[in-house]
Parts: sequence; C-alpha cells; structure tokens
Amino acid sequence: MTIFYGISILIAAIAFLFAAYLYVWVKKQPQENKRITEVALLIRQGANTFMAREYKILAVFAGVIAILIALFLPNPIWATEKIFEENIAMAIAYICGTVLSAIAGKLGLVVASLSNGRSAEAAAKGIKPAFLIGFRGGSVMGLIVVGSAVLGISVALWALQDATLLLGFSFGASSLALFAKAGGGIFTKTADVAADLTGKVELGIAEDDPRNPAVIADNVGDNVGDVAGMGADLFDSNVAALTSALVIAQSLFGGMVELSTKMVLCYAALGLLASIIGIFTARITKNGTPTGALNSSTYVTSALFMAFTAAATYLCDFSWHIWGCSTLGLVVGVVIGLATDYFTDDSKPIVKKCAHASKSGPAFTVLSGVSYGFLSALPAMIGIAVSALVSYKICGTEELIAQYGANFPLFGISMAAVGMLSIVAMIISNDAYGPIVDNARGLAEMGGLGEDAIRIADELDSAGNTVKAVTKGFSIGAAGLTVISLLGTFMSEVNAAGGNLVGFDIMDPTVFFGILIGAAIPAVFSAMLILAVDKNAQRMVAEIHRQFDTIPGLKEGREDAKPEYDKCIDVATTGSLRELIPAGLVAILATIAVGFIGGPAAVGGYLLGNIVSGLLLSLFMSNAGGLWDNSKKYVEAGNEGGKGSEAHKAAVIGDTVGDPFKDTAGPSINTQITVVSLVASLLSAIFVQYNIFG
Amino acid sequence: MTIFYGISILIAAIAFLFAAYLYVWVKKQPQENKRITEVALLIRQGANTFMAREYKILAVFAGVIAILIALFLPNPIWATEKIFEENIAMAIAYICGTVLSAIAGKLGLVVASLSNGRSAEAAAKGIKPAFLIGFRGGSVMGLIVVGSAVLGISVALWALQDATLLLGFSFGASSLALFAKAGGGIFTKTADVAADLTGKVELGIAEDDPRNPAVIADNVGDNVGDVAGMGADLFDSNVAALTSALVIAQSLFGGMVELSTKMVLCYAALGLLASIIGIFTARITKNGTPTGALNSSTYVTSALFMAFTAAATYLCDFSWHIWGCSTLGLVVGVVIGLATDYFTDDSKPIVKKCAHASKSGPAFTVLSGVSYGFLSALPAMIGIAVSALVSYKICGTEELIAQYGANFPLFGISMAAVGMLSIVAMIISNDAYGPIVDNARGLAEMGGLGEDAIRIADELDSAGNTVKAVTKGFSIGAAGLTVISLLGTFMSEVNAAGGNLVGFDIMDPTVFFGILIGAAIPAVFSAMLILAVDKNAQRMVAEIHRQFDTIPGLKEGREDAKPEYDKCIDVATTGSLRELIPAGLVAILATIAVGFIGGPAAVGGYLLGNIVSGLLLSLFMSNAGGLWDNSKKYVEAGNEGGKGSEAHKAAVIGDTVGDPFKDTAGPSINTQITVVSLVASLLSAIFVQYNIFG
Repeated sequence: MTIFYGISILIAAIAFLFAAYLYVWVKKQPQENKRITEVALLIRQGANTFMAREYKILAVFAGVIAILIALFLPNPIWATEKIFEENIAMAIAYICGTVLSAIAGKLGLVVASLSNGRSAEAAAKGIKPAFLIGFRGGSVMGLIVVGSAVLGISVALWALQDATLLLGFSFGASSLALFAKAGGGIFTKTADVAADLTGKVELGIAEDDPRNPAVIADNVGDNVGDVAGMGADLFDSNVAALTSALVIAQSLFGGMVELSTKMVLCYAALGLLASIIGIFTARITKNGTPTGALNSSTYVTSALFMAFTAAATYLCDFSWHIWGCSTLGLVVGVVIGLATDYFTDDSKPIVKKCAHASKSGPAFTVLSGVSYGFLSALPAMIGIAVSALVSYKICGTEELIAQYGANFPLFGISMAAVGMLSIVAMIISNDAYGPIVDNARGLAEMGGLGEDAIRIADELDSAGNTVKAVTKGFSIGAAGLTVISLLGTFMSEVNAAGGNLVGFDIMDPTVFFGILIGAAIPAVFSAMLILAVDKNAQRMVAEIHRQFDTIPGLKEGREDAKPEYDKCIDVATTGSLRELIPAGLVAILATIAVGFIGGPAAVGGYLLGNIVSGLLLSLFMSNAGGLWDNSKKYVEAGNEGGKGSEAHKAAVIGDTVGDPFKDTAGPSINTQITVVSLVASLLSAIFVQYNIFG
Repeated sequence: MTIFYGISILIAAIAFLFAAYLYVWVKKQPQENKRITEVALLIRQGANTFMAREYKILAVFAGVIAILIALFLPNPIWATEKIFEENIAMAIAYICGTVLSAIAGKLGLVVASLSNGRSAEAAAKGIKPAFLIGFRGGSVMGLIVVGSAVLGISVALWALQDATLLLGFSFGASSLALFAKAGGGIFTKTADVAADLTGKVELGIAEDDPRNPAVIADNVGDNVGDVAGMGADLFDSNVAALTSALVIAQSLFGGMVELSTKMVLCYAALGLLASIIGIFTARITKNGTPTGALNSSTYVTSALFMAFTAAATYLCDFSWHIWGCSTLGLVVGVVIGLATDYFTDDSKPIVKKCAHASKSGPAFTVLSGVSYGFLSALPAMIGIAVSALVSYKICGTEELIAQYGANFPLFGISMAAVGMLSIVAMIISNDAYGPIVDNARGLAEMGGLGEDAIRIADELDSAGNTVKAVTKGFSIGAAGLTVISLLGTFMSEVNAAGGNLVGFDIMDPTVFFGILIGAAIPAVFSAMLILAVDKNAQRMVAEIHRQFDTIPGLKEGREDAKPEYDKCIDVATTGSLRELIPAGLVAILATIAVGFIGGPAAVGGYLLGNIVSGLLLSLFMSNAGGLWDNSKKYVEAGNEGGKGSEAHKAAVIGDTVGDPFKDTAGPSINTQITVVSLVASLLSAIFVQYNIFG
C-alpha cells in the first residue's frame, strides 16, 4: 500500500516542480511596455483586494462550519466516544480542504496576472509565443490544483486511514469553491455586463477602450471569476470524485478494499502524469491554430491516460472491468465535449443560425439561444446516462458482486467519473488559458500594440471561448457521475449509521417529496446569482454614467480625462461580497430542512432531484451562454451586417443575457450539486436519528 | 352504482343546457358596427380555415394511431384472445376521446368568435355588460369541455366496465390536445410576435392598428391557440385525472372498488355543479373590478365544491380521508394560484422590479424575468410535493391499507388531483375570457369605438392576463399530481402484465438512465416549439415587410391601401401545421425507445424525470412569460418612462421572448407529460415482454 501513497505523492511533487519551472519561464518573458505594465498592475491590485476581502469573509464562514463539524459530525459529541479520532479529525480535514482550495485559487491568480501582459506583448511578435505564454500561465494553475488534490487526498488518507473522514476534506474544498465561484462569478459578470452595455452599446466604443471606467474591473473579473473561481471549482470536483470512489471502495469485500483504494490513487496519479506530458507537448504547429493546439494536447493526454492505466492494470493486477469504466468515462467526456462544441463553435451551423436570428431583433436572438441551449442538454444527458448504465452493467455481473461486494457496480460508476476527470489538469490549463488571453487582448488594446497584435490576441481569445465550452461539458459530465456515486455514498453512510435503506423508491411519497424540492433548488440558486449580477450591474452602470457626466472630457476621450477605475472595482467587490453567501446558504439549509422533515429517504430523493435539474440547467445555461458569446463574435467578424449593425446590437444583448448564465450560474450549479451531496452524506447519521416524517 | 352514472350524466346534461342558454344569451347581444362585423368575420374565417386544415391532419394521425392500438394494445393481437373486447374497444375509446376533444375545442371557438365583437360593442356602453359577454362566452366552452369529460367518462365506463380501457379514451383526448395546443400555440405566437415587432417596435403604431397586415392573424391566433388549444388541453387534464383515479380505484380491495368508483364520479359531477353555480353568480359588483369578479366566483365555486362533497361523503358514507385529500388538493391549487399571482400581477412588487430593470436595457429585462421565473417555480413545487406527501399520509395508515388495499394512499393522491381540477369548468371560463376580451380590445380599436371603449377593453384584458396566470398555476399543479398517480397506474399495469415491480429505485442504474433521458425531453420539446415560433415569425416578418414595401401607401395609412391579411394568416397556418407533429412525436418516440431499451424500470424513471423537469420548466416558462407581459403593460400604463421610452422598448422585447414561453411551450409541456405517461401505461405489457436491458 505504502508504495501507492509514495507514487501519488511523488507525481504530485513532479507536478509542483513542473509548475515552478513554467512559472519561472513565464516570469522570464519580457514585459516592457509601460502602459501595459501599469494596467497589469492595476488589475493585479484589484484582484488582490477582492480576494483578500473575499477570503476574510470565507475564513469566518469556514471557522463557523469547522466548529459545527467538531460539535456534530459525524456524530454529535454527546453521542460518540471518538471525539478526537472522528469529530476533531474531520474538522481538521475540513479546514485543510478549504485552505488547499484557497491556495490553489490564489496561486492561479498570481500567475495569471503575470501572464496576461506578457502574452499581450508577445502577440506583437507573433501568435506562437503569445499562445505559449497564455497556455503555460494557465498550466501552472492546472498543475497546482490537481497536484494539491492528489497530494491532499493521499496524505489525508494515509494519516486518517478512513475514507469517510475524507468527506470532511471534500466538503471543505466544495464549500469554499461554492462561494469562491459564486462571488467571483458575480464580480466578473457585474463588470463585464456593465462595461459592455455602457461601452459597446451606448457609446459604440471598443470592448477594452480605456475611456470606459469599468474596463479594469472587467479584467479583474476575468481573473477572480474565471481563473481563481474555476480553479477552486475543479479542485472541488476532482476531490469529490476521488473521495466518493474511496468511500465506496471501503465498502467492498475484504481484499478488494485495499486493491480498489490502490486503483483510485493510481488512476489519479497517472491522470496527472498524463496531463504533465500533455501540457509539455502543447504548442502551435506549423500551419496550426490555437484551437488545434489545445485540442490535440487534450487528445494526447487522453490517449496517454488510457495507455498508462492499461499498463498499471496489467502490472498491478487491477480489475479490467474498472479500467473499462474509467476509459468509458473518459471517452464519453470527450463525446460530451464534442457535442458542446457543435452547439457553441462559430464554425458550426448553430452559432450561425443564432447570429442570423439576430437580424430580426434581440428577442429572436434570445429565443434562438434558449432553444438551442435546451437542445444541447440532450447529448450530455444521454452520455451521462449511458456511462452510468454501462459502467454498472460492466461491474454488475452476479459473479463480480458475489466476489467483491454489492457496491462494486457503484464503484464502477465512480471510477467512470474519475476517468472523466483524469485529464483535469489539462482541462484547467485550457480553461485558465481563456481569461489570460482575454486579458491579453484588452491589454494589447490599452497598450496601443497595434492592429496586428490585437488581431492575434483576438484569435487566441476566440480559441479560448471554444475550448472553454468543451471543458465545461467535461466538468459538468464528471460532476453528474460523481454525484451519482455520492448518492451511493449517502446510502452507505445512512446504513452505517443504523438506517435501513435498500434504495430510494420513487413511489415512496417521502422520496418523491424530496425529489420535487431538490429539483427546485438549482433553479432558485441560479435565480439568486443572476439577480445578484443584475442588481450589481445596474449599480455599476449608474456609477459609469455618473463618471461620464461628472468627469469633463471622459466621454470624448480627452488625454487628460482619467476615469476612476477603482470606484468601479469597489462597486463590483462590495456587491458580490454581499451576495455570495445567501445563494449557497439556501442550498445547504434546504438540504438540512428536507433531512429533518423527511429523513434519509427524503434526502435521497432530494439529491436525485437536485442532480437531475442541476445537470439540465447547468448544461442549458453554460451552452446557451457560450452560443450567444460566439454568435456575437461571429457577427463582429463581419457576418449578418457586422459591427454596428442592428444584428450586432441584438447579438450583444444575447451575449449580455448569456454572461451570467455561462460564467455565474451555470458553472456554480455544478458545485452546488456537489456541496449538497456532501452535506447529505456528512449529516446522514443525524438525519437517521432526528426527523419528523421519515 | 347505476344512480351515480345517472347523476353524472344528468349534471353533464344540465351543463350543456346552461351552455346553450348562455350561447343564446350571447348571440342575442347586439352587434351593429359594420367595421367590427366585417373584421370579426375575417377572424372567424381565418380561424375556421386553420382549424379545418389542422383537424384534417390530426384525423389522419388519429386514424393511424387507432389502427396501431387495435393491432397492439393492450396486447398484440397475436398474443390475446380478447381482440374485440379489448383491442377494438380501446381503439374505439381512443377515437371517442379525440372526437370529443376536437368538438369541445371547435365549439369553444365558435362562441368565442361570436362574443369578441359583441363584447367590444358593449364596452362602448360600460364595463359591466362588456365583462359579462366576455365571461359568458368563455363559460360556454368551460361548460362544454367539462360536461363532455364527465359525460364521456361516465358513458365509457358504463359501457366498458373496465377503467383500464379508459386509458385509451384519455390517450385520445391527450394526443389531440398535444397537437392542438402545439399547433395553435405556434400559430398564435407566430402572429403575435411578428405583429408586435413590425408594428409596435419598428413603426411605433398601436398593437391592433389595422394597417398592420398581421393584425387579423394575431386575432385568429388568440382564438385557435388560447381558446381552442386551451380547451383541448384542459379537457385532457380533466379526463386524465379522472381516468387515473378510476384505474387506481379498480385495484383496491373488494367493496372499495365500487365505492371508490362512485366517489370519483360523484366528485367530478359535484365539481361541475359547483362551477355551474359559480359561473351563474359571476358579475362585476358595484365598485368592483373584473379581476375581483373572476376571483370571487372562483372562490364561491371552491367553497361550494367543498360543501357539496362533504355532504355527499356524509350521505353516501364515502371515506372522509378521501374528502380530506380532495379538499387539500383544491386548497393547494388556490395557494399555487396565489403564488403565481404574486409573481405575475402588476400591482405586486415583482412585475414592478422587472419593469424597473427594463430601464437598463433589454438584457436586464430578460435576466430579471428569467430569474423570477425560476424563483416562481419553488412555491408550486413545494405545494405539489406537500399535497402528494400529505395525501399519502392521510390515506396511508396501516389500518386503511389493510382494509382497502396497498394502493389506497395512491388513490388519495389521485383524488387530490381530482380535487384540484374539480373547479376546472370555472377555470376554463376564466381562461377563455382572456382571449375573447383581448380580441374585443382589438376590435374596439379597429371599429373606431373611441377612447373610452378601448380603455374599458384594456382593463378587461389586463384582468384576463392576471387571472390566466392563476389558472395556469392551477392546471400545472393538477397535472403534476395526476402524473404522480399515473406513475402508480403504470406500475399497476406493468404488474398486471406479468411484470414484477415493487417500485422504482433511484439507485437502480436502469431507472437512473430513464430519469436522465426523461428529464431532457421537456427541454427538447420546448426547444422545438420555440424554434418553430422563431422560424415562422421570421417568415411572417418578411411577409409584412414585403407588403409594406410593395403596397403603396400602406405604411402611411392611406385609406385606399389595404393590407393582404390572408397572406399573413396563410404563413402562420402553413408554418404551424408543418411544425406541430415533430415535437410531439419526439416525446412519444423517446418513451417507446426507452421502453424497448431499458424495459419497465427505465420507463418508470423516464416518467419521473419527465414530470420533474416538465413541472419545473412549465412553471418557469408560464410565469416568466406572464411576468414579462404584465411588466410591459405596467410600463405602457405610464411607469418607468411609459410608452415609447427606452424602457418600453426593452419591455416589449421581454414580452416577445415570453410569448412563446407562456403560450406555446409552457402550457404544452403539461400535455406532453400526460401523453407520455399514458403512452407508458398503454404499452406496459409490450415493454414487459420486449426490451434489451430490462
């Protein structure tokens, strides 16, 4: 066993070293343009201020939760004798989860804010160096996030020797991610929406025109929302998938417990190794495009992962059934990604149709995006359904169950999720690349680097948008599978706590009650986040108007008229900090309320309803948002009337609607689902004992 | 037993007589204005042409289905000896269902197109007579629809003596409703959206300005979509609720079968009787408003129903537990209605907030409506969940189950649905009132009846919008409960066909597979309908532009320039007939595919997923649509800048987005859920025998 911990920790260490190398490499790249250095500093300062204030609030929150855990979980202190071994251990695991997640987000932010200016300046020299800086900057975060996850899980399991306590670690990661994602998401879209509406729509100036007081806040938002928030989010998904597989592994028969635990650690480590190699190979080939470079390194990583795990299965005598599930998960992930790409890539017909609809006015843009967004959920739902069903069938033969335990098929599903998330370091690199080059585009414009550099930065940015859609499909799919196995985890926990569940029957009205409430929660949660953006953005629009009205010459672009960037950053910061707690809290409290009302059966239903409607809504919102964004870009590229046409105005409105869909609510739902599942598992013993109708 | 059939048929006959009286009363009202008579004739002709073409297509469709039923259902003809008793009987029941549904829609249309012009002329005299004509015109349809449902169910059950065969009758009603609602919904919104965009937004002329070539098509749409389509829809909900209660009643123990059957018939008949009295009492009191009149008659009907059923329970020795469930259903229906009202009424804060958001531009209008739409789903979901849970608990004591059978709690849930739908005749009257006075408003404008008449018509119209939202909440809630009991029906049918189900366990991956696919279907279905509207409306906008460009003087409003109204009607008709089949067919075929792939367990999951996401999406879309519509009206009433302001333009865009949400996709999802559940129950025996993974 020890050797497996060793290997995991070793590969995590390699990841950190490689991240350090890339960090130094990025830092060595020249940054000479005075204006860019100045603006990059403003962005960095804004991001740091926001993160410091956000983390202060979250530290208080995490402290309260840690105390509650120490008092009540896994069993209330008056009902257990293992206060130190369990309650305190879990509280510490929880804190470690929050801290690692916070660090991963923060480090990602640091390197992103180093890379953006350098990538912009490199764009003046050509697309290849600019791409490499953007991508490698993103990779630093990818490697740190996944390295921390692998390291954290391995060390925690080694120290605690009880996978159940990892639920605390995972909950720490998730609860931080929930608020970081929500807070960052509200910040970024507040600024983006307000900047677009006042700049592009009202004044008809370019996206990153320095006259616009919201332009720095917009760039800060890219960093705190898309980089730091997303890092925390994928750290959480990864940890949750691994934890859930480990908890289920623990419930198998005899020797299979250790073998399965080895498998989980080994698969996670090999996924990270495959990603390291994949990241290393990523570059634009002769005649290649940025999209091509990002995609081909994703495929290389996937192929390596399959080969590595096959070799490990052969050498260590792992189950080939599980290898099958994991490979299936990865393949389905790629398929979901491709389906997402079909709905959001501007070289494909759907984006063109949406852009064409814009000619008839904004209402048609919105209707068309909503419709295709709904349609786009189908392939992913089928993909998740098929991979769960097939994984279960692969591992669910009578023989295997008799040999390894009744939970073996569920272990298969959880390993499909691990497989889908195996290349997550690569995914994060792709994903963080997006906001870095988005920033770079803005800096190139503000630094006056000329048309060519802006065009190159635009091309890099557009590739970022496309790939972002693909990686989002991936992470939503993996969250779906993870949460299915967390449902199994919840059931195991309930039974371990003396409950008597054999399943959750839809026809049981208590389960049904839970299902309906659970299904409503992601809608309520998204609504609260979108309203927060809506409200904040209105405040920021008012602030921008105030500046235009009171600062002489600002609107006309006089050299001496300086916008007050910091005021806008302050509006976004204050607003998003005020709004980030309630939505997440509603989801957590609703879970607890359902548990106390209906007991474990209702909670099982609640989790199901939550997963189902959560998947549907997050796919819908992420894809519709990506579709609108790219169809706006398609119009701006000169189609359907091009920039300044009525179609363009309509497309901008579509994009504005899509902004909080795809960058605030959509991706946060993912985390919301995971958090709720973990809360349910953690509180299972309490729900078994205390409930009204169960 | 016979006396209960007798009573039902008698009350149905009273309803028909009362409807005939109201019809004659409406017809007697004066219609003298030449221009109004002329336009009303155009509307009537357009509606008749559309209905004739639609029914022709649906007749072919129904014929094909009837043949398939005769060949395969409930058992394939090669596997049954009861070809005549079962297969042919069910095919005939199916045809009766379609025919009754079609007749109800058609008659509603006839009287609606008599009432609109008369109500407009009465508006010149005052609000009270105008209201009465609009309401009584709508009531004719309410009475006919519910009378037919009660009559059809009673006669069919009397003749067939087997509630299972009623599933065929119910499927006939639902399948017709599905296509009538979809076809009418696409027609009405195609015309409405195109008319608004070209008229209000582009030219800045009034909603019903006769210069607009789409204006007659818009009025035709109100009739075929909102009147005829909605009539077919509620006929179907009512029949499905009663059928499902009767099928479950049949599965109870011994003497309870007959007693429960009596209960169902009796409750349905008493609901109709209460509605007759409620309709009779509806009028605007001194100092009263139209909304007040509609609401107070709804409350009168509800109170009467409770009193009548209490008396019946006392006299006939029915179960008081069931009375409790039915009353609970009705009360929850009212609560859901009030919650809907809170989100959509323009005297309440939500509509005002959405109107205020419009000041910042259309993107904010859309975001605000989407968010509140999502939030608005929560109370209804809780309401449905609570009424299902509590009904189950009321009827689920060990004693009751031992005495009456394991399905007694399920019977309680189905009777909660019957209770919620008991006042459906009243609901339809309120609902059909809406499009009639909407038409009247247009006719008042086109007939030049003066400012006062238009103002009165406007007030009547606004009450229609508010009440429509309330009644929609009612019918969605009832559909939710009905479908829960249909899930029970499906399980009974599977077991009757030799299946071996004790429930549908979420943890069974086959069930889970079904759940995910089922959840995606309402999204796909809505997307297809919205895209159909989107596509058609773009075609119609092009046709309107063609007329403006080629007919000299039309835009300027020259007396001699006549728009070609019929061309627009033709565009809407052709387009909606082309699009009405595919969406419905996708839902039906997906059910069959899931059944053949995963067997009954997967279908059970599929139905659940379908209900959950269907409820969520239909509540979201109906309420968001109503909210946008009323916030546009609120702005038009002079708030936030009033007519012609930027806020008004934004509000109009929100309203346009909401149009297909609330009048095409939202209400059709209801029917889609019911149809899918009935298909599943009908095909249960086949799924048990033929499937791949089950």
